[in-house]
Amino acid sequence: MRRDWTRRGLVAAGAAAALGGGMLARPAPTQPAAPPLVVEKRVFEAGSYRTRGGDTIANVRIGYQTAGRLNAAGDNAVLISHFFSGNSHAFGRLGGGDGPPGWWDAIIGPGKAIDTERWFVVAADNLVNVNAADPNTTTTGPATTDPATGRPYGLSFPVVSLRDFVEVHRRLVDHLGIRRLALVAGPSNGGLNTIEWAAAYPEMVERAMPVIAGELDAWLQGWLDIWAAPIRLDPNWRNGDYYGREPPLRGLAEAWKIVTLQAQDRAWTRQFNRRVAQGQDPARRLGDRFEIERVLDAAGAARARATDANSFLYMVRANQLFLNEYPSLEAAVSRSRARWLVVPAATDWIFPPGAVDELVEALRRHGRPVEVAPLGGDRGHLDGLFGIAQAAERIRAFLAA
Amino acid sequence: MRRDWTRRGLVAAGAAAALGGGMLARPAPTQPAAPPLVVEKRVFEAGSYRTRGGDTIANVRIGYQTAGRLNAAGDNAVLISHFFSGNSHAFGRLGGGDGPPGWWDAIIGPGKAIDTERWFVVAADNLVNVNAADPNTTTTGPATTDPATGRPYGLSFPVVSLRDFVEVHRRLVDHLGIRRLALVAGPSNGGLNTIEWAAAYPEMVERAMPVIAGELDAWLQGWLDIWAAPIRLDPNWRNGDYYGREPPLRGLAEAWKIVTLQAQDRAWTRQFNRRVAQGQDPARRLGDRFEIERVLDAAGAARARATDANSFLYMVRANQLFLNEYPSLEAAVSRSRARWLVVPAATDWIFPPGAVDELVEALRRHGRPVEVAPLGGDRGHLDGLFGIAQAAERIRAFLAA
Repeated sequence: MRRDWTRRGLVAAGAAAALGGGMLARPAPTQPAAPPLVVEKRVFEAGSYRTRGGDTIANVRIGYQTAGRLNAAGDNAVLISHFFSGNSHAFGRLGGGDGPPGWWDAIIGPGKAIDTERWFVVAADNLVNVNAADPNTTTTGPATTDPATGRPYGLSFPVVSLRDFVEVHRRLVDHLGIRRLALVAGPSNGGLNTIEWAAAYPEMVERAMPVIAGELDAWLQGWLDIWAAPIRLDPNWRNGDYYGREPPLRGLAEAWKIVTLQAQDRAWTRQFNRRVAQGQDPARRLGDRFEIERVLDAAGAARARATDANSFLYMVRANQLFLNEYPSLEAAVSRSRARWLVVPAATDWIFPPGAVDELVEALRRHGRPVEVAPLGGDRGHLDGLFGIAQAAERIRAFLAA
Repeated sequence: MRRDWTRRGLVAAGAAAALGGGMLARPAPTQPAAPPLVVEKRVFEAGSYRTRGGDTIANVRIGYQTAGRLNAAGDNAVLISHFFSGNSHAFGRLGGGDGPPGWWDAIIGPGKAIDTERWFVVAADNLVNVNAADPNTTTTGPATTDPATGRPYGLSFPVVSLRDFVEVHRRLVDHLGIRRLALVAGPSNGGLNTIEWAAAYPEMVERAMPVIAGELDAWLQGWLDIWAAPIRLDPNWRNGDYYGREPPLRGLAEAWKIVTLQAQDRAWTRQFNRRVAQGQDPARRLGDRFEIERVLDAAGAARARATDANSFLYMVRANQLFLNEYPSLEAAVSRSRARWLVVPAATDWIFPPGAVDELVEALRRHGRPVEVAPLGGDRGHLDGLFGIAQAAERIRAFLAA
C-alpha cells in the first residue's frame, strides 16, 4: 500500500528535478513542528595525511557538524557519512536555524530516532567531495590548491579510497575525544563507508547501519565508469587541467543525468508521461526533446554548475575501490564485531535487492547479528533519503538494545 | 533452479563480450544436429517513401531473408523484426551454409517452434540500422548516400519512427504477396515493432509475440537519451558531418558500453569479480582500469568500429517515438485484433517486469487474448536472445491454436 508521504515525495521530486536538485531535494516534514535543531559547520584540520596508496597530502581539511554532547566515557557517539553527491549537512538547520533541514533530519534530532538528547552525533564531509565550491562543504581533493604549486591539484591529487575516507574520519573522531562509536551509519556511499569502518576498526564500532548500500560488485564498478565517461569525453576536461578555464560542464551534466535517472525508479518518470517538451517536435527534429529529456538536461546542467568534474572522477574511483584492501566482502565483514541494521530500498536500481542480500548473507554466514529493515516506496535509491522515516522506530529500537 | 543452458550461456557471453559482440554472441545449439537451414540475403527496393513526419526519402532499400514457402492464400507468413543492434539474420546460415546461425535460430527452422516447413518466415532489416557498413545488412539511413547531393545524408536524413519501420516492412510484405501475417514477432526493438504492427494493421496481424519488450515510458526514453549522449559529446561527431573523416569512435564506444552493461544482469559480471585488469593499478592511477572496465572498453570499441554513430542516434529517436501516433499504449493495443504471446525476461534491466506488466494489463483491459511466457535466466535483457529456446513449446502451441 502506498503511504501518503510517497505521493508528497513524488511531487517534491518533480519540482526538485526541474531545479536540478533531484538528489538533494528535501522531504516534507514527517514530525510535528518542534523548535529547529540549529547546527554550525566546522572545519577539521587533519594535517598531513599519507594515503593508503602511499602518497602524501600536505594539508587535509574536512567539514563537519555535531549535535548533542559526548559523555565522559566518550562512548555515546554516532558517526554519519554522506551519499555520493551529499555533504555533512545530514541533520539540523544551518544559517542560525533559517536554512533547510539536513538530508536525514527525519531521523536525527531531539526526540527523534537518533536522539541528539542522548547521542553525540557527528556528520562529516568526505575527501574529494563533489561540492568543492559549496560554502557549506569543506573537502580536500583535486579542486584544492596544492600548497607546493599554488594551483589546484587537478589529476596530480592522489587516488583515494573509501578506506582513506575512513582514516580521515578516524582522525576527526579521535580529535573529538570519541572512544567508541555506538553507531556508524549513512546512505549509499555513506553506507559503504559504514561497512569499511566496521571492518577497519571492529573494536570501535558497536552498531553499523548501511542504508541503500551492499556489495559493490563488478556490475556497479562498470556503472560507475559509465557515469564518469561523459566527463572524459568533454574536450573542456583537458585531462583534468581546466581550473581557471571553461570547465567541462557538458560532460559533467551528462554524468549527473545518468546518476539522476539511475537513482530513481520508473515511477518517478510517470509524471512526465511521454510528453513532448514545450515548443519541441522530436518526431521531426533529431535535436528536439521529450519532456523527460528536458527535465534531465536541466537537472544535469544545474548539478554540473554546482560541482567539480575531477572530484566526480575521484569519487567514482573511491567507490570502485570499496573494500580494496580485503580479498572479498565476506573477508571484510567477518572482521566486524558490530550489530548490524541493513536498510535497503525496494526499488533501488543502484544497490538492487541482490546486492544488499549479498551483504546480509555474508554477515549471517559469519554469525554477525543482523536485522534488515526494508524501505517501501517507489523512489528507487532515493527512498534511502526521502523514505528513511519509515525505518525510524526500527532505528530507535536498534539503538536502545 | 538454474538450467544447464544458463551456465553455458554465461561462458559464451564472457568470450563474446571480450570480443565486443555481447549483443550478437551466438547461443550454443539447443537442438540435435540437423542439416543447416541455408538462407540468402536479399535486397528489397522500396522506392520513394514519404515518412509519417512528411519528409520524402528518394530511394529506400532494406535487406531481408526468407525461409519456407508462401501458400496460395498468402496467409501462412511470419514476420520477424530485429533488436536495436541486430539485423535480419534471425535464422539459418548465410554463406552457403557455412556462416554462423541467426540470432533466433533456436526457434526458427525446419521442425522448430516456428517451423519453416509450415510457415513462410521473413526477417527484415529496419530503416536506420546501426550496422550500415555490414555486408549482410541493407538499410537506408543517415549513412546512405543522398542521391540529391552524392554525399551521405548525415543529419539531413529525416527523423523516422517505429511506425515508419512498419510502413517499409508493409511494402515488403505486399511485394512478397503476403495477405495475412499468422505471426509478427521480435525481441526488444523488434517487439516494439510487433506492437506497432498490431495497432497499425489489426486486420493483417493474427498473432503478435513481443519478446523482451513492453511499455516504452518516459523512464526508458530518458535512458535512450543517456545512451546517445556520449556520441554528441565526441568532438569528432561534428553534428553528424563526419563521413570521410575520423568518425566519433570514442563517443560511440561509450554509448555501446552503456547498452552492453544495461542489456546484462549483475550475474554476468560475476566472472570478472572485482579484479584489477592485468598490469593496471586503479588504486594508484586514476586512468587505470578494473577488469570489468577493460571488458566494457573492449566491447564498446569493437562495436563502435562495426557501426555508424548517426544511425545509433536515429535508432534511439525511433524507439523514443514508440506509438507516437496514439494517445497511449492502451489506445494503441485496443485497436489490435491479434492473439498475443508476451515473452519477458525475469532479470531484464531495459524492459523490467513492470514495463511488460503494463502491456499485458492494457491488453487484458481490452479483452485481447494474451498469454505470458516468462523466460528464466540471469542474462538480463539478453535472455530474450540466448534464452528464447525456453519458450519454444509455448510458441509452437501458440502457432498451432
